[in-house]
Amino acid sequence: MIAGDQDFAPIAHHVREQVGKQGFMHLVGAEIIELARGVCVLSVARKPELLQQHGFFHGGVSAFLVDNATTIAAGTARGQGALTAEFKLNFLAPAVGERLICRAKVVKSGRTVSVVAADVFCVQDGVEKHTATALASIAMLDQASAPKAKSPA
Amino acid sequence: MIAGDQDFAPIAHHVREQVGKQGFMHLVGAEIIELARGVCVLSVARKPELLQQHGFFHGGVSAFLVDNATTIAAGTARGQGALTAEFKLNFLAPAVGERLICRAKVVKSGRTVSVVAADVFCVQDGVEKHTATALASIAMLDQASAPKAKSPA
Amino acid sequence: MIAGDQDFAPIAHHVREQVGKQGFMHLVGAEIIELARGVCVLSVARKPELLQQHGFFHGGVSAFLVDNATTIAAGTARGQGALTAEFKLNFLAPAVGERLICRAKVVKSGRTVSVVAADVFCVQDGVEKHTATALASIAMLDQASAPKAKSPA
Amino acid sequence: MIAGDQDFAPIAHHVREQVGKQGFMHLVGAEIIELARGVCVLSVARKPELLQQHGFFHGGVSAFLVDNATTIAAGTARGQGALTAEFKLNFLAPAVGERLICRAKVVKSGRTVSVVAADVFCVQDGVEKHTATALASIAMLDQASAPKAKSPA
Repeated sequence: MIAGDQDFAPIAHHVREQVGKQGFMHLVGAEIIELARGVCVLSVARKPELLQQHGFFHGGVSAFLVDNATTIAAGTARGQGALTAEFKLNFLAPAVGERLICRAKVVKSGRTVSVVAADVFCVQDGVEKHTATALASIAMLDQASAPKAKSPA
Repeated sequence: MIAGDQDFAPIAHHVREQVGKQGFMHLVGAEIIELARGVCVLSVARKPELLQQHGFFHGGVSAFLVDNATTIAAGTARGQGALTAEFKLNFLAPAVGERLICRAKVVKSGRTVSVVAADVFCVQDGVEKHTATALASIAMLDQASAPKAKSPA
Repeated sequence: MIAGDQDFAPIAHHVREQVGKQGFMHLVGAEIIELARGVCVLSVARKPELLQQHGFFHGGVSAFLVDNATTIAAGTARGQGALTAEFKLNFLAPAVGERLICRAKVVKSGRTVSVVAADVFCVQDGVEKHTATALASIAMLDQASAPKAKSPA
Repeated sequence: MIAGDQDFAPIAHHVREQVGKQGFMHLVGAEIIELARGVCVLSVARKPELLQQHGFFHGGVSAFLVDNATTIAAGTARGQGALTAEFKLNFLAPAVGERLICRAKVVKSGRTVSVVAADVFCVQDGVEKHTATALASIAMLDQASAPKAKSPA
């Protein structure tokens, strides 16, 4: 958050409120650990229910974090609604570790489409390993758009 | 499954066994509803824990189904191990309905990389709506590869 | 083109006129061989200047055809301007043959973003081989948008 | 190029030789302006034949540079053959200017699949503008693979 950016507080409040209503965030156990203009960082701790058959975080968990973090990051730009149009996700290494972190950052904030990059890291013994990288296009909604589609994700 | 394809039974058995060990499949409540050479269909019923703030299935659920179905489909080709290298997912419409279905089909079965297409449909009042489409690249592993990475997803 | 779709003739005329002004279409030697609502097919004949070092069509030629055909296809929907937001392209087989054809078809026509699928085929001895598959997101422009960005591609 | 990396000289020589045989590189007029372990930078000067109808570089030119630069970058890692499996390209801004530059860098060098990021910049009045960003998966070939598929792109 830009120092003195007083306009961001209500946006952050609104975003957190909306994300707090996502049942899937709660089921997975993910949380927002950083929120700023054009930036969103999500994190989730390891638990057996998030793994695949070899004990790594399931690829679907990384995909969920990418989907959500990129849309939230885009939505912080001007507080307007944002919907994931698409994303592409490359897996780089097995997600072995005690915590998964997804950092999303707006590359280009557009009027109708914003482009957001995201990287996923897995923390093991305090060391972060880069496990996935992604690129997303987020459709930016008018303030006047239907309320049902007005919020991140 | 090709009629009389006796070689496929042990592959199907192995794939189902491996997928059955995925904690995240159980957490989400997804199941394999079709499995054949080059084909995997996953499905999950609506429950509040899978939704986002407007009552639609969360995009992350579709992403998880795509990630898993494409890798499983690739793994059925010759029963060898398969790892998602990457996928790209386009959202087409809000996932409103009582059930989400992801159909994955191998487009090209390669020695080192297979290409798999997947489509996600949401069933409402018995009618399927096309809600997302995806394209994935799956890294095919040698039988001799490390056992930790030998199975779908 | 839908039989009796009299509204499409001026759209087709406008699209062909715009594409006719693309220097790169002429350099490559590509042409529109089919144009209809939501559909565009481009084709280019083999010549040494389009190949890579092994005598296949260069991947960049397929990429160009995909970029252009998907945007043109999206632009036919209502005749409005269209700009490629992004595309993803998977190569399936070497593009060996005397002609390359790219068929693009709108999967979902949106108000702000349209999704278009494209497939590339290489014709050898009269037989088509599927050499690449792609998925694109096209930003749809308002009629009121700046004229500099008002046309396909 | 790493100082003192004597092993890289023959790789660089081989790569340049192969790329020099690509008819499409010559037609477009692109050249390698930097080559190092895991890095390839391509550049092309503006000429009318590379533009679209509004005088910008055609999206297909950026796509070609991305396709080629990512594969070449991957091929420098160990000098082995490399084939583009897929790439995804997001356009960020119109490519207005006198020169287009594509910088590709390996994110993860794999045994069978390498992941490469690329960014495209357009130079206008000496200032670079970021016009596109891409993410590619490159299939890495064995030295023993068929010679027809042994080289970059």
